[in-house]
Amino acid sequence: MRVSKYLLSTQKETPANAEVISHQLMLRAGMIRRNASGLYSYLPTGLRVLRKVEAIVREEMNKAGAIEILMPMVQPGDLWVETGRWDKFGPELLRFTDRHNRDFVLGPTHEEVITDLIRKEVSSYKQLPLNLYQIQTKFRDEVRPRFGVMRSREFLMKDAYSFHLEQETLNETYQAMYQAYSNIMNRMGLAFRPVLADTGSIGGSMSHEFHVLANSGEDLIAYSTGSDYAANIEKAEAPLPTEGRAAATQALTLTDTPNAKTIHELVEQFGLDITKTVKTLIVKGATEEAPLVALLVRGDHELNEIKADKLELVASPLEFASDEDIRSAIGAGPGSIGPVGLKLPVIADHSVLVMSDFAAGANIEGKHYFGINWERDLPLVAGADIRNVVEGEATPDGKGTYAFARGIEVGHIFQLGTNYSKAMNATVLDENGKSQVMLMGCYGVGVSRIVAAAIEQNHDDRGIVWPQAIAPFTVGILPMNMHKSHRVTDIAEQLYKDLSAAGIEVLFDDRKERPGVMFADMELIGIPHTIVIGDRNIDAGVFEYKNRRTGEKQDIPFAEIVDFIKGQMGA
Amino acid sequence: MRVSKYLLSTQKETPANAEVISHQLMLRAGMIRRNASGLYSYLPTGLRVLRKVEAIVREEMNKAGAIEILMPMVQPGDLWVETGRWDKFGPELLRFTDRHNRDFVLGPTHEEVITDLIRKEVSSYKQLPLNLYQIQTKFRDEVRPRFGVMRSREFLMKDAYSFHLEQETLNETYQAMYQAYSNIMNRMGLAFRPVLADTGSIGGSMSHEFHVLANSGEDLIAYSTGSDYAANIEKAEAPLPTEGRAAATQALTLTDTPNAKTIHELVEQFGLDITKTVKTLIVKGATEEAPLVALLVRGDHELNEIKADKLELVASPLEFASDEDIRSAIGAGPGSIGPVGLKLPVIADHSVLVMSDFAAGANIEGKHYFGINWERDLPLVAGADIRNVVEGEATPDGKGTYAFARGIEVGHIFQLGTNYSKAMNATVLDENGKSQVMLMGCYGVGVSRIVAAAIEQNHDDRGIVWPQAIAPFTVGILPMNMHKSHRVTDIAEQLYKDLSAAGIEVLFDDRKERPGVMFADMELIGIPHTIVIGDRNIDAGVFEYKNRRTGEKQDIPFAEIVDFIKGQMGA
Repeated sequence: MRVSKYLLSTQKETPANAEVISHQLMLRAGMIRRNASGLYSYLPTGLRVLRKVEAIVREEMNKAGAIEILMPMVQPGDLWVETGRWDKFGPELLRFTDRHNRDFVLGPTHEEVITDLIRKEVSSYKQLPLNLYQIQTKFRDEVRPRFGVMRSREFLMKDAYSFHLEQETLNETYQAMYQAYSNIMNRMGLAFRPVLADTGSIGGSMSHEFHVLANSGEDLIAYSTGSDYAANIEKAEAPLPTEGRAAATQALTLTDTPNAKTIHELVEQFGLDITKTVKTLIVKGATEEAPLVALLVRGDHELNEIKADKLELVASPLEFASDEDIRSAIGAGPGSIGPVGLKLPVIADHSVLVMSDFAAGANIEGKHYFGINWERDLPLVAGADIRNVVEGEATPDGKGTYAFARGIEVGHIFQLGTNYSKAMNATVLDENGKSQVMLMGCYGVGVSRIVAAAIEQNHDDRGIVWPQAIAPFTVGILPMNMHKSHRVTDIAEQLYKDLSAAGIEVLFDDRKERPGVMFADMELIGIPHTIVIGDRNIDAGVFEYKNRRTGEKQDIPFAEIVDFIKGQMGA
Repeated sequence: MRVSKYLLSTQKETPANAEVISHQLMLRAGMIRRNASGLYSYLPTGLRVLRKVEAIVREEMNKAGAIEILMPMVQPGDLWVETGRWDKFGPELLRFTDRHNRDFVLGPTHEEVITDLIRKEVSSYKQLPLNLYQIQTKFRDEVRPRFGVMRSREFLMKDAYSFHLEQETLNETYQAMYQAYSNIMNRMGLAFRPVLADTGSIGGSMSHEFHVLANSGEDLIAYSTGSDYAANIEKAEAPLPTEGRAAATQALTLTDTPNAKTIHELVEQFGLDITKTVKTLIVKGATEEAPLVALLVRGDHELNEIKADKLELVASPLEFASDEDIRSAIGAGPGSIGPVGLKLPVIADHSVLVMSDFAAGANIEGKHYFGINWERDLPLVAGADIRNVVEGEATPDGKGTYAFARGIEVGHIFQLGTNYSKAMNATVLDENGKSQVMLMGCYGVGVSRIVAAAIEQNHDDRGIVWPQAIAPFTVGILPMNMHKSHRVTDIAEQLYKDLSAAGIEVLFDDRKERPGVMFADMELIGIPHTIVIGDRNIDAGVFEYKNRRTGEKQDIPFAEIVDFIKGQMGA
């Protein structure tokens, strides 16, 4: 591609209102332009990257045996009524009526449409398992679209849906998708982690998220230093305590703590070890008999609300009790609550049950007990994993310790079970001619989001540093003062021809621009390999090669350049 | 692809509510399924064809120097207000408000969005000309969607928009697109005609439609038997009469014609030559001074309303006068009107001006004049081309005669001029630093519509007959009783492997189905080449090859099959 015939559209200035680096660089590199809040046009450079990501996703899906289809973006509202999501989905689901006043939605996802399609198309277990996917535009009416295409309203997704008679083939397809997603990330040259995820409101039994690692990522991932184990912080399992409870050495003492409303104030004011303190959190209960429930975590630990939400005694969604509720039930405020003498159901994090000589609120305003010991001062209570893990502690597989990383979720695989198929009565006849509700899996990749995530992971202060597989162009040709030197023109044109003939995608900067402008553009756009041609090089019979990622420069003899570039591409 | 791992979804029965053959066959061949009125899902077989059409369109656009971008499907309403189309477009434009109550539309076309993008992105004539395209989903809220994907509400289009400082480069890009569209049609193996088209309400100065020829086509095309000239019937130019007016031989006579309200009744009742009669049509005038205008066409000719609409004296849009208007202005009803003594502006088709001894209404109820002659009985009036051409008459280039064909419009190229750029103030600075409104062209291809049009042109009573370039698969393998014969299985598997390794797309019917079912499916889907393997063939060491289009069968020795198929593909 000649720049003179292209729409380069680079910008020097960092655009206002672009908070994250990928959004800034996509605007500056002429990849996208904003049409309205959360709506973007892809300029040629942006679209080239998007299409490369799309192609890799398609190839790996096909390799994994999935079959491509295409469903409409506009979906009939009545299907969403059937699954109950018409009411549950909230205002992210853009609804409208057509000219005949019928209800439609702009699809944010296609579970309803595919389940409707398959219940009509498939009648026998012999047609299963089936894994169908599409790469298609989605719409989600985000309340505050932000970060460019990272969280836009219109976006490109690959969504796959599989259908099964037995759990066994669902597991197999799930594994095949796990592998396909790993292949996709590896082929794109992105550092990533698949992490165990909470299945959340979509339900189902098994779920992994695929995260592109980046310091700017919104999600915190806890991974093992010694194995493949990784989980979203919401889901990461805390190890069971390995040491038993130490014997009591202190007497129980009721202490005045009028100025200690938080654990940190208590620790500071009384010189306590924070690992010898207990936080008591009061949440709403699931039943009328127990309208409030107390949760205990060690002073230095954080309650994991997703884990707590799943406790049988606790109301879902999790809701903290108000100050008033606490005072009227216990007679003291939240800063003075503790397990001793507490007349509520109590659930303690496993780590609390092995503590001794610890401090906690006394359920009397402005007072704490110090030197609390289980079974002497209060009966043992139920234990559960209700806290976030911390770096350095053992991972559940026993093969390493937890380390944390930040990630951007770009893929998600789910075992849905019968969540949708049951509501929509999607059944097949089994071997005995009996009607069975199909099991389903669903598997999503945020194609446009990957573009942004790749930039978050791969950039420097001069611009984007594309992994080669998804770079808009592989090689940039920069002729110096081409319009003044026939020699430069001739050699640049020949090089452009030779590289193109070798199937290499070239951006040939044939503009009458100063070298500085041309260098800055190539680096901003992030072309992996650049070749400079100037009178000086020509005299020496070499091209000046520069690698965008390493910054290394090398002089390459004219005759060797195509093979050299091929070698770099293979590297 | 193995049928056992695929979603074939063929149907024997002709579906109800599918009026045209392409719609019926797309449903029966398992290409599409209806989600709601005018909304379809592409099943795997349909999507394979759609993607092939898309790929050919993309390649030819790139070859022609157009650059691919991608604009959002959801567009801000305020851009449509800016061009006035918010009010003009009618209910086909689907409008909705987002969660913040802002106006948006689902894009049926992208002139507004691209013009907005380019006015912000391009500031200098040096960046022009520019031709940008996208291949993207469109939505048009048709009042009565029909014919499957031929006239659906959601559809796939390639739309290109070019920007220019001078008419000269607009002409060049227009020509390049004309050529690209011709290449696209040729590569797909479709019989087509580019035809001069009326620019209609979209305005502009030059326009061609590209039609796939098919007897079922909605449009009538008038083409030259001796040259490339072809035009939509609305636009086809009538030749000027080559012979002069014959001298008068009859006297003017006023005749009672009480039962002749139409030309055909007149001709029948009085034994007249229809080419010696004149029809007089009264339409609304463009000015208050001439509220009605009379149009004359020969009795055997048809008024061309599009041509008449463009006459200066005639109101646009064209509107016929009511019976009442005619009676109160002329004193007689529409069946008795004629040019003799008529006190209205009169415009005659050129062919009427060379008539002599002709009959027409007398402007007296129930009476006609016979033997009318120009300049003797009435003064000559203005002549114009206001009729449809007829088969057999000369084409305007003088190189042949008109023949008619029916076509399906699948492409349209337009010179828009400044229609949109002026309304949206899309300007660049010219060489003198002066601000100039850009000229624009727009170029559309109905990608999903091509799929249906190709079927309308290529089918027989057994199903679709795909041109090879857009067939879902190139070769079908039909093993006979594979599950009973190890020999058949082994050879079929090997053939599948060999053809796939040669890069040929194969549909391998590995089901336990009766041969009749397998043959019927292959023919219905329209696979160009099928290879039968049975014990009988194996004994003879040959495959039984069948060509879908010609029906010809041939025995091909095992060792020669891959080369034979390659040869057939090249043919």
